[in-house]
Amino acid sequence: MTDSNSDRAAAQKPFRRLLLTGAAGNLGTQLRGALAAWADVVRVTDIAPLGEVADHEEAAIVDLADEAAVHALLEGVDAVIHLGGISVEAPFEDLLEANIRGLYNLYSAAQKQGVKRVVYASSNHAVGFHPVTEVVDIDAPLRPDSLYGVTKCFGESLSRYYFDRFGLETVCLRIGSSFEQPKNPRMLVTYLSYRDFIELVRCSLFTNRVGHAIVYGVSDNRTKWVDNTKAAFLGFRPQDSSVQFEHLFRVAAPTADLDDPTQRFQGGAFVLAGPMEPKR
Amino acid sequence: MTDSNSDRAAAQKPFRRLLLTGAAGNLGTQLRGALAAWADVVRVTDIAPLGEVADHEEAAIVDLADEAAVHALLEGVDAVIHLGGISVEAPFEDLLEANIRGLYNLYSAAQKQGVKRVVYASSNHAVGFHPVTEVVDIDAPLRPDSLYGVTKCFGESLSRYYFDRFGLETVCLRIGSSFEQPKNPRMLVTYLSYRDFIELVRCSLFTNRVGHAIVYGVSDNRTKWVDNTKAAFLGFRPQDSSVQFEHLFRVAAPTADLDDPTQRFQGGAFVLAGPMEPKR
Amino acid sequence: MTDSNSDRAAAQKPFRRLLLTGAAGNLGTQLRGALAAWADVVRVTDIAPLGEVADHEEAAIVDLADEAAVHALLEGVDAVIHLGGISVEAPFEDLLEANIRGLYNLYSAAQKQGVKRVVYASSNHAVGFHPVTEVVDIDAPLRPDSLYGVTKCFGESLSRYYFDRFGLETVCLRIGSSFEQPKNPRMLVTYLSYRDFIELVRCSLFTNRVGHAIVYGVSDNRTKWVDNTKAAFLGFRPQDSSVQFEHLFRVAAPTADLDDPTQRFQGGAFVLAGPMEPKR
Amino acid sequence: MTDSNSDRAAAQKPFRRLLLTGAAGNLGTQLRGALAAWADVVRVTDIAPLGEVADHEEAAIVDLADEAAVHALLEGVDAVIHLGGISVEAPFEDLLEANIRGLYNLYSAAQKQGVKRVVYASSNHAVGFHPVTEVVDIDAPLRPDSLYGVTKCFGESLSRYYFDRFGLETVCLRIGSSFEQPKNPRMLVTYLSYRDFIELVRCSLFTNRVGHAIVYGVSDNRTKWVDNTKAAFLGFRPQDSSVQFEHLFRVAAPTADLDDPTQRFQGGAFVLAGPMEPKR
Amino acid sequence: MTDSNSDRAAAQKPFRRLLLTGAAGNLGTQLRGALAAWADVVRVTDIAPLGEVADHEEAAIVDLADEAAVHALLEGVDAVIHLGGISVEAPFEDLLEANIRGLYNLYSAAQKQGVKRVVYASSNHAVGFHPVTEVVDIDAPLRPDSLYGVTKCFGESLSRYYFDRFGLETVCLRIGSSFEQPKNPRMLVTYLSYRDFIELVRCSLFTNRVGHAIVYGVSDNRTKWVDNTKAAFLGFRPQDSSVQFEHLFRVAAPTADLDDPTQRFQGGAFVLAGPMEPKR
Amino acid sequence: MTDSNSDRAAAQKPFRRLLLTGAAGNLGTQLRGALAAWADVVRVTDIAPLGEVADHEEAAIVDLADEAAVHALLEGVDAVIHLGGISVEAPFEDLLEANIRGLYNLYSAAQKQGVKRVVYASSNHAVGFHPVTEVVDIDAPLRPDSLYGVTKCFGESLSRYYFDRFGLETVCLRIGSSFEQPKNPRMLVTYLSYRDFIELVRCSLFTNRVGHAIVYGVSDNRTKWVDNTKAAFLGFRPQDSSVQFEHLFRVAAPTADLDDPTQRFQGGAFVLAGPMEPKR
Repeated sequence: MTDSNSDRAAAQKPFRRLLLTGAAGNLGTQLRGALAAWADVVRVTDIAPLGEVADHEEAAIVDLADEAAVHALLEGVDAVIHLGGISVEAPFEDLLEANIRGLYNLYSAAQKQGVKRVVYASSNHAVGFHPVTEVVDIDAPLRPDSLYGVTKCFGESLSRYYFDRFGLETVCLRIGSSFEQPKNPRMLVTYLSYRDFIELVRCSLFTNRVGHAIVYGVSDNRTKWVDNTKAAFLGFRPQDSSVQFEHLFRVAAPTADLDDPTQRFQGGAFVLAGPMEPKR
Repeated sequence: MTDSNSDRAAAQKPFRRLLLTGAAGNLGTQLRGALAAWADVVRVTDIAPLGEVADHEEAAIVDLADEAAVHALLEGVDAVIHLGGISVEAPFEDLLEANIRGLYNLYSAAQKQGVKRVVYASSNHAVGFHPVTEVVDIDAPLRPDSLYGVTKCFGESLSRYYFDRFGLETVCLRIGSSFEQPKNPRMLVTYLSYRDFIELVRCSLFTNRVGHAIVYGVSDNRTKWVDNTKAAFLGFRPQDSSVQFEHLFRVAAPTADLDDPTQRFQGGAFVLAGPMEPKR
Repeated sequence: MTDSNSDRAAAQKPFRRLLLTGAAGNLGTQLRGALAAWADVVRVTDIAPLGEVADHEEAAIVDLADEAAVHALLEGVDAVIHLGGISVEAPFEDLLEANIRGLYNLYSAAQKQGVKRVVYASSNHAVGFHPVTEVVDIDAPLRPDSLYGVTKCFGESLSRYYFDRFGLETVCLRIGSSFEQPKNPRMLVTYLSYRDFIELVRCSLFTNRVGHAIVYGVSDNRTKWVDNTKAAFLGFRPQDSSVQFEHLFRVAAPTADLDDPTQRFQGGAFVLAGPMEPKR
Repeated sequence: MTDSNSDRAAAQKPFRRLLLTGAAGNLGTQLRGALAAWADVVRVTDIAPLGEVADHEEAAIVDLADEAAVHALLEGVDAVIHLGGISVEAPFEDLLEANIRGLYNLYSAAQKQGVKRVVYASSNHAVGFHPVTEVVDIDAPLRPDSLYGVTKCFGESLSRYYFDRFGLETVCLRIGSSFEQPKNPRMLVTYLSYRDFIELVRCSLFTNRVGHAIVYGVSDNRTKWVDNTKAAFLGFRPQDSSVQFEHLFRVAAPTADLDDPTQRFQGGAFVLAGPMEPKR
Repeated sequence: MTDSNSDRAAAQKPFRRLLLTGAAGNLGTQLRGALAAWADVVRVTDIAPLGEVADHEEAAIVDLADEAAVHALLEGVDAVIHLGGISVEAPFEDLLEANIRGLYNLYSAAQKQGVKRVVYASSNHAVGFHPVTEVVDIDAPLRPDSLYGVTKCFGESLSRYYFDRFGLETVCLRIGSSFEQPKNPRMLVTYLSYRDFIELVRCSLFTNRVGHAIVYGVSDNRTKWVDNTKAAFLGFRPQDSSVQFEHLFRVAAPTADLDDPTQRFQGGAFVLAGPMEPKR
Repeated sequence: MTDSNSDRAAAQKPFRRLLLTGAAGNLGTQLRGALAAWADVVRVTDIAPLGEVADHEEAAIVDLADEAAVHALLEGVDAVIHLGGISVEAPFEDLLEANIRGLYNLYSAAQKQGVKRVVYASSNHAVGFHPVTEVVDIDAPLRPDSLYGVTKCFGESLSRYYFDRFGLETVCLRIGSSFEQPKNPRMLVTYLSYRDFIELVRCSLFTNRVGHAIVYGVSDNRTKWVDNTKAAFLGFRPQDSSVQFEHLFRVAAPTADLDDPTQRFQGGAFVLAGPMEPKR
């Protein structure tokens, strides 16, 4: 019958069901299309409206801080691409709910539901207080540049624990700046093209074993602050570069203000962004 | 007059006012006596009763999750010895309040009140998933062995951020097992005598500059899983050893059960203790 | 006369006489053609029939465990490409004769005959018990994945000794999987094209000084488990990649069986292949 | 009854049966006494006469190259202290039988008989071609200084394989010079007192988990070429020093003959001792 | 007016005034053209005649050992490209004046005049006594191969001091062999094309913050002795390679003379060039 | 005869003739006595008066910048202890003569006269710009804290060159603060007792081979900024500690002025001492 035919066709996709959190965001939107080819069913979720839902998609509006809802969300899922939560500096109270409590809910549910792997959107802001005159590899000490960055360190520690304790694999993507194009000179260094981002997720999902991996999400830009040599087992080879965007920014002599932290540290403006007062 | 005389005498102590959190606990009780010599005023706090309060002490019952109370607690404080919070595996919800929200409150208040230094009771459980056949130094990757351990990693990241951002110094003490005597063979390795613990706090408070430091809190035991070489600038030289307690445990052939995580990893029983279900 | 003319022509080749062991094997066959351009005379040897012998070739059927025969074989040789011996898991007794006694005979004879350099076919199975989630460089600790791998470690140690003791140079090629094309997904990572293999031998022979070098023999595949940075003085820059063969294998979700050693370790099926019982 | 009483008493010793190979040698003789306290039964073996056999001992004259005899030897054994084989430079043929074939027989039998741990007498000659102006730790690259040293490298690789493959634990003791007293100035650096040797074996047997460990066997001599920091999990703390023997050697200006390998390398006279011709 | 118009145009160039020392030399001549695009005014200096002076150039014949002249030379300068001094082995007395006293004068003046950055022509001869069988990164220990190399080490130390003390930034270019084409086989490894040299200077001048950086100046040659990974923050990606010149040198078997220092060490002939006697 | 008798007696001392430069200084004076036991003849030199000259001594007033005089001074010398030159911050011109030209003269003469070894008084000020919250080992990057420190870096590079080029061995002593007792709290960390200083020189002279070695000259003080592990082949084991002097300095709360370089860096007051203007 038609059903069973489409079932067979569907069965040829590598994953049965993938969960994409933060599906309404910038990167979630980019990724949604690609996932169709990788899974029979793509469950998409966000706290914001998810737009048009495709045939192969299941949509759910869920607050990650809602434990019961998150456990339901993870049912029947093979693997998760977790882009949800807050991805900029914010008051601690907000970060606590979205990036700490929410992440715990996600991992607790994933483990209980037998999920095998999480691709976790960490951030270069987990190491943003390293100076711009250093190249950090994936073993570099954590140097969060913001409370947001601190919550990303939390996520890397929590997922490490779930791997060591239960074998639940995670790839932590320390994503740089993934936009249509760099918005300022710093982003020439941290730029990750959408195409490279999707490829990075692909590598993270399909590499047979990843353990608990950390990898920097940057394109093959001319200037590099990060070194992915030790993550080469993931097979991520970026195809794009920010060179094409260098003309957007005026070539200028260095602004060698030795005391400006936003110029000294890899995190850029983030290093001064926090801590933010709660909106009361 | 008498007052001004005693003022002068008091003024000869190195610190004006120290804050000790977790003052009612095992280690807090040990430390309370020593602090009298180091500060004119010792503010002691806990959520449990604090017992008899000495002349040089100020006592306050405070829940660290209570933001306003914590800000009041930090007023006029030179330096903090933070032993408060939960120090064993516990349901995530409890750890979130005590060790995450509570710690944020502490640092947020410390920074605003101009506190110069925090001595933070981290734990060897921040790296407890390293195998017992390795020796970890202070740059070893984080490997929390429990949700409790994850919260200690959070504390190390948060305090790093406050140092990089504001210059608020912290010494993270990765305390082993500080009891009257070791309670099991594993503690022969992780034992920290009370005397050595107090000396470690002394070094952490009085070393002129510490930046953001990490140091293992263990006595000079025969067997070592940790290496403090890179923390030698703190001047901590333990005087005690667990050798005197080795006779307490029967000498036995190795229990080489290759699959028992509590024997394979430095964290011992902690590695299986979590995650705990909330008490409902 | 004609003879002396051709002598002069021949004399323009860089080497006077090269010895190729294992010349009847898969890689030996590939290499035989290339050697014609590099040496006036190529002495080819194997325990198996060597097929048609070209004008510039000298053929000899020799068992490497035969000490006297090996000493004769090395006479008048400038350099050796040693592909001989057993290159898969085998009973220890067989490995002992071919890869241990045979190798000792080769080095003992080479040293006595004044040979200057050996290009030694070591194997990635000398380090095959490293997990697939690590990238190993040429200083990584030895982790043989089979008795075969142990004999390759022996070869690396023995050749190191002959270099330190007598200055006899060796390049140890830790060859991955050099076949017409990858035979399974693991070989997408370990694939070494024939062209790149020949280039690797060329670099090993012609680099002016190599000391005792170790280098991984893999093409520029997308996924990498090895890092040749410290061997860059050999000038090996692979031209091929297994990307063209990825379509041969069905894209599938990870088979995250945490307990399957053939998936966890770089050596793949080798890690379970041994020890083999002798055929009696 | 008497029997059952003594059985019970015996049962209080940590090991049921230990096997000591090389029991008739210098170090074997030293150790034999100590083993009485650690095991109900001590099986002692050598190719040389074993002298008087104590009540708790089982004696067997065995050639390690005799596969069947070795398998019988390992029956019912908890752990092995393997001092057997050749411990000086010798013709390769002899080393092959004693230190390669013999060692394989030992491990093959140990694995099949369910032995849990081997304490293996490796040697500083596995790294003897490191210069005397370096301090090597346990991860230093192998640099055998003799064919004997090459066989010790073989032993370290083989035992690593048996650990990774079967979980059979080994501690490789890179023993320096363990004699009544140093016989030359070099031995002031490599001296291991008999008392410290016995303690090193004790640590190797009784540490609960050792995995595959490497440790240098030297006393706390004034001058050090080795660094055991990473082996501190074994708890070996030497009590003796060669300082008491320094007076035996005339204080002299350095013999700075830059070209004398026996002065340049840690292996001393070993670096020139081999390869030895077979005695024919 | 014309003046003010050209002023405005000029003002659009990134630098106001650059100083180029050694402007009459081989590399200075190459660079002079490129600088026109980067600065309104290029001050060129040498002790040799400077040829035709362009409109945007200011020329000055100055001996760097002349303190007062050097201070005048640095007035009004934004950044310096320092190619001046002696760039080959020479009698110590000459090196002392040009490369030590002269360099001190330059930095002393630069600091007093508020110069922000120096691009300093160091040399691979600062590390030329590393063997050709090693790949050195930018943290490799200094191993000068000549008195000239010693003065380059001095320059790296002096510039480090001026950065740590005053924040005056320097990029030390460890230039290989920058000529029209390689002159001998060694230069196939150390070759730096003129185009890549100019790009390296461009990166060194325009990277926003460089601190005190070290980078090897070599093109993307097939064989590499150096590793610039840790300098990737400078964005230097060489476009050229010496491969096109390999045909110039006859392919030959290795000249494995173990005792020839010019073949053993990266510095080549420099390692025997000094110390030179003064010309008297 | 009497002469020949005393010759024979003298011949029993390890060295025939030692040269001590800087013999009139603080440390030179300390050392002079000890040298009597180590050499038949001790040649002492300084630019200042040398006081009473003992029977076994040869005294010479020499300016190290006087090339001819230095060459004469080195005649017939086995080994040199070079304490001469300037040991505090000074105008560059003075440092250039004493510590650069003077040092070159010394090494040039030593090499020509066949001297075998130099014990060179380098300084912790060669690495004084490392922060006080780090522990530096002997491979730590050079971070001179003064022009004086830069000249000590020069000395380490120059002596490295003479070793690599000619085999002339040097031990660079990075001496801390060697006085009767510490003069300020910083010196509690850098204190080197006179007894330990003399022992350090003894080790440097009598260790059979030293190559080009670097070692920190500090006693076994409680707080350490340096790590001599890699120099353990010298056998230096300090006997003294500054603990006995801690009572001299008032125990105070940290002076956590984040911007005071003299508190932040190991070099203490040196980091601000230079560059000094010449005395004109």
